[in-house]
Amino acid sequence: MQICCLDLEGVLLPEIWIAVAEHYHNDDLRLTTRDISDYDQLMQHRLKILRKNRIRLADIQGVIAGMEPLPGARAFLDDLGQQFQVVVLSDTYYEFAMPLIRKLGNPTLLCNWLTVSRSGYISGYVLRQRDGKRKAVKAFKGIGFGVVAAGDSYNDLSMLRTADRGVLFNPPDAITKRYSAFPVARDYPTLARLLKP
Amino acid sequence: MQICCLDLEGVLLPEIWIAVAEHYHNDDLRLTTRDISDYDQLMQHRLKILRKNRIRLADIQGVIAGMEPLPGARAFLDDLGQQFQVVVLSDTYYEFAMPLIRKLGNPTLLCNWLTVSRSGYISGYVLRQRDGKRKAVKAFKGIGFGVVAAGDSYNDLSMLRTADRGVLFNPPDAITKRYSAFPVARDYPTLARLLKP
Repeated sequence: MQICCLDLEGVLLPEIWIAVAEHYHNDDLRLTTRDISDYDQLMQHRLKILRKNRIRLADIQGVIAGMEPLPGARAFLDDLGQQFQVVVLSDTYYEFAMPLIRKLGNPTLLCNWLTVSRSGYISGYVLRQRDGKRKAVKAFKGIGFGVVAAGDSYNDLSMLRTADRGVLFNPPDAITKRYSAFPVARDYPTLARLLKP
Repeated sequence: MQICCLDLEGVLLPEIWIAVAEHYHNDDLRLTTRDISDYDQLMQHRLKILRKNRIRLADIQGVIAGMEPLPGARAFLDDLGQQFQVVVLSDTYYEFAMPLIRKLGNPTLLCNWLTVSRSGYISGYVLRQRDGKRKAVKAFKGIGFGVVAAGDSYNDLSMLRTADRGVLFNPPDAITKRYSAFPVARDYPTLARLLKP
């Protein structure tokens, strides 16, 4: 039995911030770490826009409630669970992800927290630790498990490298060109085949 | 969000070896670490009896297939999952526990492995590491999570001590007397209350 660590957005779910940006027709909320590479700067930018537009946590949760996992994600996870202990490692926040995690069959999720003001606005966020995905993989290896992992983006690369086997799922071209050592899957059957021993 | 580490047998499931002993009317299989304190000696004893009685892994799995979680365990877990990331830490084996884990809603299970001979007999076992429950709790704390834990027996005590909050669930009297520092729950509503922040 090995542990399979999966990224959440882009692998099992659509990108949450993109869904929020589309819901509010607000292109400023579409920016990602590809546009503002410093994560704290990006988040402060997002929180400023939310407050300016009077978008509260509950409003965002309402948008998220209307979201669904990527087509086939639940069946992919159910199948993977026959062979692995699946743990989802994400940079998102529990306050965002939990309703969607339920739609995925409740896999264990290790991610981060938001802080919320009395008036219901997101006032900040708590990153559990820097490079948390990589450190989680290292922790599982440290307690005697083999670990495989899959992700789609820059913030997944250290996790993929630390795992015994790392697979890219639907990554942008810039990543496949620059990090050609990782096998690439573009659909769930291929991803399952590349992850399994 | 905190992680809740739960022991399996005695907390969520009946004892698997006891069920096997009862199915085969074989009192030798009822022995536990309370009778033979050295775990390896106990397991070698069990494997010898299984072979002598021509009981294969598939036969044991057949007995396990007829088992059910403790009454209320599934609802307790579903409720707990609203507030915690639940991880089951057990000294059992994946080859035994997986069908029952499915009946519990597929929480993540960290346990051990069996080795099986060509003829289908259990030939040995692989302990992931010594004192694995405690080390798993330590690993979760090491990646930035608060951890609460519940167990029923001697092999849970180091896990309960290492967690931020440890609760005994239906322990034998010898344990409550000797380790009176741990709060004790005798039903799921009390256990949930004692675990929640």
